[in-house]
Amino acid sequence: MSVGIVWDERYAWHDAGRASNSPWAEPYPAFDRPESKRRLFALVEASGLMDHLVRIPARAASEAELGYFHTPDYIERIRALSEAGGGDAGEAAVFGPNGFDIARLAVGGCLEATSAVLSGRLDKAYALVRPCGHHAEPGRGRGFCLFGNTVIAIHHAQAVHGVKRIAVIDWDVHHGNGTQDAFYDSPDVLTISVHQDRYYPVDSGGSEEKGEGSGHGFNINVPLPPGSGHGAYVAAFERIVIPAIDQFAPELIIIACGFDAGMSDPLGRMLCYSETYREMTRQITALASKHCDGRVLICHEGGYSPTYVPFCGLAVLEELVAHRTAVDDPLAAWYARVGGQALQHHQETLIDAIAKGVQRSR
Amino acid sequence: MSVGIVWDERYAWHDAGRASNSPWAEPYPAFDRPESKRRLFALVEASGLMDHLVRIPARAASEAELGYFHTPDYIERIRALSEAGGGDAGEAAVFGPNGFDIARLAVGGCLEATSAVLSGRLDKAYALVRPCGHHAEPGRGRGFCLFGNTVIAIHHAQAVHGVKRIAVIDWDVHHGNGTQDAFYDSPDVLTISVHQDRYYPVDSGGSEEKGEGSGHGFNINVPLPPGSGHGAYVAAFERIVIPAIDQFAPELIIIACGFDAGMSDPLGRMLCYSETYREMTRQITALASKHCDGRVLICHEGGYSPTYVPFCGLAVLEELVAHRTAVDDPLAAWYARVGGQALQHHQETLIDAIAKGVQRSR
Amino acid sequence: MSVGIVWDERYAWHDAGRASNSPWAEPYPAFDRPESKRRLFALVEASGLMDHLVRIPARAASEAELGYFHTPDYIERIRALSEAGGGDAGEAAVFGPNGFDIARLAVGGCLEATSAVLSGRLDKAYALVRPCGHHAEPGRGRGFCLFGNTVIAIHHAQAVHGVKRIAVIDWDVHHGNGTQDAFYDSPDVLTISVHQDRYYPVDSGGSEEKGEGSGHGFNINVPLPPGSGHGAYVAAFERIVIPAIDQFAPELIIIACGFDAGMSDPLGRMLCYSETYREMTRQITALASKHCDGRVLICHEGGYSPTYVPFCGLAVLEELVAHRTAVDDPLAAWYARVGGQALQHHQETLIDAIAKGVQRSR
Amino acid sequence: MSVGIVWDERYAWHDAGRASNSPWAEPYPAFDRPESKRRLFALVEASGLMDHLVRIPARAASEAELGYFHTPDYIERIRALSEAGGGDAGEAAVFGPNGFDIARLAVGGCLEATSAVLSGRLDKAYALVRPCGHHAEPGRGRGFCLFGNTVIAIHHAQAVHGVKRIAVIDWDVHHGNGTQDAFYDSPDVLTISVHQDRYYPVDSGGSEEKGEGSGHGFNINVPLPPGSGHGAYVAAFERIVIPAIDQFAPELIIIACGFDAGMSDPLGRMLCYSETYREMTRQITALASKHCDGRVLICHEGGYSPTYVPFCGLAVLEELVAHRTAVDDPLAAWYARVGGQALQHHQETLIDAIAKGVQRSR
Ligand SMILES: [Zn+2]
Ligand SMILES: [Zn+2]
Ligand SMILES: [Zn+2]
Ligand SMILES: [Zn+2]
Repeated sequence: MSVGIVWDERYAWHDAGRASNSPWAEPYPAFDRPESKRRLFALVEASGLMDHLVRIPARAASEAELGYFHTPDYIERIRALSEAGGGDAGEAAVFGPNGFDIARLAVGGCLEATSAVLSGRLDKAYALVRPCGHHAEPGRGRGFCLFGNTVIAIHHAQAVHGVKRIAVIDWDVHHGNGTQDAFYDSPDVLTISVHQDRYYPVDSGGSEEKGEGSGHGFNINVPLPPGSGHGAYVAAFERIVIPAIDQFAPELIIIACGFDAGMSDPLGRMLCYSETYREMTRQITALASKHCDGRVLICHEGGYSPTYVPFCGLAVLEELVAHRTAVDDPLAAWYARVGGQALQHHQETLIDAIAKGVQRSR
Repeated sequence: MSVGIVWDERYAWHDAGRASNSPWAEPYPAFDRPESKRRLFALVEASGLMDHLVRIPARAASEAELGYFHTPDYIERIRALSEAGGGDAGEAAVFGPNGFDIARLAVGGCLEATSAVLSGRLDKAYALVRPCGHHAEPGRGRGFCLFGNTVIAIHHAQAVHGVKRIAVIDWDVHHGNGTQDAFYDSPDVLTISVHQDRYYPVDSGGSEEKGEGSGHGFNINVPLPPGSGHGAYVAAFERIVIPAIDQFAPELIIIACGFDAGMSDPLGRMLCYSETYREMTRQITALASKHCDGRVLICHEGGYSPTYVPFCGLAVLEELVAHRTAVDDPLAAWYARVGGQALQHHQETLIDAIAKGVQRSR
Repeated sequence: MSVGIVWDERYAWHDAGRASNSPWAEPYPAFDRPESKRRLFALVEASGLMDHLVRIPARAASEAELGYFHTPDYIERIRALSEAGGGDAGEAAVFGPNGFDIARLAVGGCLEATSAVLSGRLDKAYALVRPCGHHAEPGRGRGFCLFGNTVIAIHHAQAVHGVKRIAVIDWDVHHGNGTQDAFYDSPDVLTISVHQDRYYPVDSGGSEEKGEGSGHGFNINVPLPPGSGHGAYVAAFERIVIPAIDQFAPELIIIACGFDAGMSDPLGRMLCYSETYREMTRQITALASKHCDGRVLICHEGGYSPTYVPFCGLAVLEELVAHRTAVDDPLAAWYARVGGQALQHHQETLIDAIAKGVQRSR
Repeated sequence: MSVGIVWDERYAWHDAGRASNSPWAEPYPAFDRPESKRRLFALVEASGLMDHLVRIPARAASEAELGYFHTPDYIERIRALSEAGGGDAGEAAVFGPNGFDIARLAVGGCLEATSAVLSGRLDKAYALVRPCGHHAEPGRGRGFCLFGNTVIAIHHAQAVHGVKRIAVIDWDVHHGNGTQDAFYDSPDVLTISVHQDRYYPVDSGGSEEKGEGSGHGFNINVPLPPGSGHGAYVAAFERIVIPAIDQFAPELIIIACGFDAGMSDPLGRMLCYSETYREMTRQITALASKHCDGRVLICHEGGYSPTYVPFCGLAVLEELVAHRTAVDDPLAAWYARVGGQALQHHQETLIDAIAKGVQRSR
């Protein structure tokens, strides 16, 4: 089992600006700060897991590659703003000087990871990139995202590596609207998003959004209620996500992997902890073994707890590599016991209804 | 309507240490940092609301006053540790050099606020103190709390000001275990805690904990499921908290006021926003007008979002003072719309069951 | 002795942006951060000195008042940039959203302090404002400064309060170029700057810059070599600054008071410590008693050590008020002993040469 | 030219505690924070220089290795304190939980670098370790230093690799008292320290401290006055350091490399900039080529400017590797022009006097 990891120090140099421009708010850094990701990579190194991983160098995506998804106008606007010192790419997607270069490096990191897996050089890869990408639209950035990292990686897989059927499971706490939209009418890309109901974007992500045209049935949303925990996520996987991917039988599985559904995240209101992410990864890798020679690509999305994201990310990477380090999540024992971790009746009712709807749309 | 506020710069100097001592965790400041409270006071000043408030100077509580609740051994241990540079007062209650002095200043701030209200000098008072107090036990600190600020304020009200019947509503996201325990067998102090179910302490706060002996029926716990929002909190107030206090007819109402059930709190998993706190305050002040000549004392507990606590706290203070400033919560419009803000069926079922149980225990 | 202090929480909300826009520099906040000033004010409160001070509320300076010094174009440009989210006012003078309003509040704080003193309401006043002002030019901001706080205060003193002869001593570690330029041809305003030789601006501040026209002899620069300490500063005061002001016999003395010549300042390379600032203040207040009924106005400029500025500022304020608090500068004993604190031969030679030059120009 | 670099993420996890325990000081992190070193390593990666370097893994030094320099009592005390959550190793040498392990990793990083060079595997190595070591004494930590990294590396070189004659040049802004003391009576180790006069420790580092017994003449102190810049450092090198090492003809040259004599350092009061460090490195590497087959070992000491240390460190590493990256120090042009960079007369007089004294002691 050979597994790669992408991390470039410059990802930490992306400057997401201030949390608020309100005249009543003292300046404070935006929630998208480098700490959570940098500390995840640091834990990978400190734990010794790095000895089981291959470092994949990032590169800047070309403008042609960005153009798979984004309009020329948008690309040019970001380039120009970046040279002028930064700005807002659209809605809550602030970047600083050189932000264009860093965002291209994030896309390129995902592309290199894709190529490493699809060329057969590696079995799996984790692209620990920043800024994230799943909210980005063709013509504007949104929600800390500048370019659609995963969308472009999928196009790259199809255009360069000749892979056709790809499944994306996005477990970031926010809806993966950008990925959904990019392949809404395609039966070749199965897009699944498990997220907090009507959180961000507040008006997308409903379970009734199933794709259109020949893509109908190839988009699945699981909008879990706030307060969902380990039980709800595992149930959503076992009853919806895994059966759907299994039936789809993809050639590649991609995880859009945010950790903002985790405990102590300041944005998400969920209860996931390291074992939740470990279990979801286990189920995905098993499926990948069955359908795609084990090929799994992970693109990092959000996750804003500097203290807890590292333990969640390490669990995912340990599962990818099939090696347990000596690291012990110091919070897992407590987090496992807090109220609401087990599957709740109202969650089960919702999940089963969505599962039934998914079956009907096939 | 005359309203006082306690704030002392030294509250911001309390040093709650590191978030973790795990060998696998890079150092990070504990969640209890000064920013959220300091920024709340700053917004009170910047908004002009300070012109409608009277500043109440804090003072250090005496050891005799601490002794209302705490054992001599514990007091001495904290004093000695503080002189030696700090330590852990028990369970996750770290303090630094001079921590004893600051914690006494927090207690004393609550005592001065109590006296200001009960002497008739002011109608209401908000003690914006730090460290918090509602988890503290007689013989050990817990959960960022060193001394039982509110417990000692209640004893002070009774012993010094001759007030007998006091109602405490604790809406911090964590269970107010220390206050509950202190008056568990007393019919004179009605302790109510609305909190996230089995969060911290993970094994207390169930609705079956109703008091004992002659205090039976005078402790009410409302353990709301994670993910509860505006609707659930307002329902809990209207159906449980307000009727119970109304029936109790207290001479003084105290709010143990944490904002960690608010959006963007890294610890709480709830959805409250500024309007939730405004509404709860409105209901309490109305009740205070009915029963206790408007007397309300607020002791600040937790709340760990540096960017959002100020707007929640300002809403509470505006409601106390009955004056709206020009400040506009820049997040309220979004937060009002996110999924889960309305009362959910499973929340309503739980709240009604607790309400019925409360009625039965009278 | 009645002494006022200006501080407005919004001064801490000024956002000076990033330390560097270089593509090779990870983002880092600019050196001009709120901590040093906020912590100075906090120490004033915590020490009890506030009980000996009168708080003077700040107000926004009007555009007409800004127009005493700045061009209409510049004022309008800052206003527009501020509404658009901020920008750079010229050279290393970045500000954020609402920066125009905060900068006007800084000017207005100095104006209110001026009026408090010149109306006779108070004897002395310390305007603890932010951003600073002494580098600002009529048409551009420079070096963290947006508007010429002190320059405008001087015009205000002259235009509104009918004061004519004003002496300004600027002991910020950087050259007070803006103040020098504003009154370079005026014999009514004696501008003196004691600063680190050719530091910032790197090409102004030489001792040969003495004023022009009828203002010749009314500008004095004392460019001390880097590494100057207590002895050099006291000598510069005793041999140049004090005699010059004494001879000038002003109606008001203004101190442009930066603490960046202090120990542990990341920008200045000097050795001043709390006793240096105390001594310089003592000499100025004595002179003010002799010439101007004790009237002294202090406008805060730079100073970037969050840990040490508070002790320097407290020493100045204690001297103004003529009251010693219980506060003990924990670093003074060490700082007094480090190499270079005594007047060095090469410093003395320079100071005496400048003193001689000053005498010649009269 | 093969050059190695040691960096371990856990070096950034060392917790140096608070800047002050004074009751009048709001908590602030100690000056020894991880940023400056982490950002240096990050720049090495971002610049591409890492492609020209070999990463040397660190390891924990054994207690026997620590025992080369430290007393068993001291080692045991640090171990026990570390397990108990941390403490102060002596004088301003605070560490947190697991601090013993991290400090051993710093020593071990220097040992691995030593072995890499002396085994012939590499020509040169830079041990970017934390905490620093040059102030540590056998029985107590001092000034952010726990164990004598360099002292132990020298013993290791002698005991394990059979190297006898070693020259150490310490250009940290503080006196290298620990290294001086360890070899004060040895003619085999030439210890040279160029530092700010009587800064820290305030009572050691005078030029009259020349070694004792057979070690007389083998310790050289160059206590430069505060405010010294490029010219003074280069003159000290050309007139004292280089001739002394040249005459000594060592088998290995070690640089105890702090960057706290650099501009924008909050502790040092000197003016060095990237070109100063580049030039000093150039002179040392030339000497190493002449005397020791190019063998140079660098042990990182202090340096507290998070924004500027990276550029100084990169210059040193570029010089070691003999490769210039595309990185441009954005501050060098300004720093080169500030007053005091050229050799001053009083500095020259001092340097020449010390040079003469050195010649006499041979
Ligand atoms: Zn997200
Ligand atoms: Zn709480
Ligand atoms: Zn300055
Ligand atoms: Zn040093």
